[in-house]
Amino acid sequence: MSTSKLAIIAGLFAFACSRPGAEQQTGGSMTTSKTHEYAIVIHGGAGTILREEMSPEKEAAYKAALNAALDIGEKILKDGGSAMDAVEQTIRSLEDNPLFNAGKGAVFNHDGKNELDASFMDGATRNAGAVGGVTIVRNPITLARAVMEQSPHVMLTGRGAEAFAIENGIDTVAPSYFFTQERWDALQRAKAVEKQKESESGMPAKANHKMGTVGCVVRDKQGNLAAGTSTGGMTNKRWNRLGDSPVIGAGTFADNNTCAVSCTGHGEFFIRYVVAYDVAALMDYKNLSLEDATHTVVMDKLVKAGGEGGLIAVDKNGNVAMPFNSEGMYRGYSRPGERVVEIYK
Amino acid sequence: MSTSKLAIIAGLFAFACSRPGAEQQTGGSMTTSKTHEYAIVIHGGAGTILREEMSPEKEAAYKAALNAALDIGEKILKDGGSAMDAVEQTIRSLEDNPLFNAGKGAVFNHDGKNELDASFMDGATRNAGAVGGVTIVRNPITLARAVMEQSPHVMLTGRGAEAFAIENGIDTVAPSYFFTQERWDALQRAKAVEKQKESESGMPAKANHKMGTVGCVVRDKQGNLAAGTSTGGMTNKRWNRLGDSPVIGAGTFADNNTCAVSCTGHGEFFIRYVVAYDVAALMDYKNLSLEDATHTVVMDKLVKAGGEGGLIAVDKNGNVAMPFNSEGMYRGYSRPGERVVEIYK
Repeated sequence: MSTSKLAIIAGLFAFACSRPGAEQQTGGSMTTSKTHEYAIVIHGGAGTILREEMSPEKEAAYKAALNAALDIGEKILKDGGSAMDAVEQTIRSLEDNPLFNAGKGAVFNHDGKNELDASFMDGATRNAGAVGGVTIVRNPITLARAVMEQSPHVMLTGRGAEAFAIENGIDTVAPSYFFTQERWDALQRAKAVEKQKESESGMPAKANHKMGTVGCVVRDKQGNLAAGTSTGGMTNKRWNRLGDSPVIGAGTFADNNTCAVSCTGHGEFFIRYVVAYDVAALMDYKNLSLEDATHTVVMDKLVKAGGEGGLIAVDKNGNVAMPFNSEGMYRGYSRPGERVVEIYK
Repeated sequence: MSTSKLAIIAGLFAFACSRPGAEQQTGGSMTTSKTHEYAIVIHGGAGTILREEMSPEKEAAYKAALNAALDIGEKILKDGGSAMDAVEQTIRSLEDNPLFNAGKGAVFNHDGKNELDASFMDGATRNAGAVGGVTIVRNPITLARAVMEQSPHVMLTGRGAEAFAIENGIDTVAPSYFFTQERWDALQRAKAVEKQKESESGMPAKANHKMGTVGCVVRDKQGNLAAGTSTGGMTNKRWNRLGDSPVIGAGTFADNNTCAVSCTGHGEFFIRYVVAYDVAALMDYKNLSLEDATHTVVMDKLVKAGGEGGLIAVDKNGNVAMPFNSEGMYRGYSRPGERVVEIYK
């Protein structure tokens, strides 16, 4: 073989290795030689995160919140805990933090209320639970898990889901618990924009696609995968709209044989493109690596469709992927000896 | 080649040709030589349909209803109408017929109310609309289509979906419109069984998986696909439970590049196995024929998981499939010169 050909091949390998999570992958099929003992990946939403609107203090606060959430999940995993426990507890931490659009900090709908959605999936059994439009549940991710474990159903909504929460001893709060000034102001701005657009065009304005969903995917020491997603949805949303977050297959999916996925972005596109399951299907049916499958869905299919957002994913070997086609995505992951927390590209 | 080998090969071909919809398919990849000008497929639910409980009069009534629904859709298609119009009008006919668990004839929930779900998808654009838990909308399939065409959202639920219906001039009725004595009696029986099981085991009984969802998938003369599904859900359901029918990817999916699918069965399994989209993924990523993809999902994956039910599907060439793993499924299809209406295996 000539020296120039060797140089080209060496260059291709260097390129492959420069893509995060692709250390042991070549040519589209996953040939991972190393299995990470555990891996936890989180997101705090994708969207227009402008550097000029972000103070150093605010950026530090976001990074601290992401690190604190990862700490909680990683401790569970180090101690041999389950992927499901790590997902639930990590997301609870993000739900309790008003920086994120989930739990405390959820956006307001058109009627000035907070309606929360969440879903949860166990990769070992493909059991799943989801709730849509709850207004009095402090941690919707815990309710989603309870739906999976304590009911014969997968998806409960509205007042019914709340009744189930009360019957099962899930923590409830007064709806006012979810009030934050920043989200309230965001609703007023969205309504002002909407009013202006309506008076200009005579047509109702499109809803404001405020993002900030949270999610977590995990591979535990036992090799089990789990995924969860929680959100307040879109600012100024109407008509009890549900996005992709409470939809298994769209916003959340987990199967030990392929991967665990949690999405964030313009939910309508993620539903129509069955995004979370599509990653798993590309791995299962086309033998793509996690890196290539997630890249295909987020950077090719969703971009062509006009669907803004991103996702986090982990496979059975602990490879991770965090692609997004928006300006930024709050995200991070931990594996033994590794910790990454990022906001921008 | 020996005569015996030839006989075996001939036998294999005869077997392949004996499977409905497999006329032009061999070896797992779709090599259809003929394109049907149009095709419409419907179902009226899968489940335990016992011959001994079915009088000749009742069977005739079901078959007449299925034929009448096919007549409506087929006329639209013969006249060059769109797949979407055919799906909507055909499902409206099934919704208006009290024999089926959708629209008039929907089952009762635990609180003695009728909560209706539906979804609709356009294969040309992958636009979609869905509604969950509406109680005053006469034809939920029409509302699902309106959500797709008149809102920026895909999925609306409960009172919000009803407010959207009223704002958009969709026909509403008093909740009492949905009362039928047969479904009311079914609820009383389900509650009696539940009470007995609880007193025996001390545990809440599993909900009764009454089936009877309706659906329609179409390939029109322009080559466009569309799919729709409508249901009253499960008798005695609680907590504003949603099944797979209003979930795009689970109960309904359509994409001109692959197929249109509508499901019926134990919805929780269909959500967890993302059934409707899985058929499309197997065709797209593994190059399976419609027949092989639907068979893999319904007769292999769902059977292993314990998920009872079936689905109807049509591909871009007008091939049709109607597999089910339950005792029966009300079903039928029409293509130029062909009409099939069946209940049992």
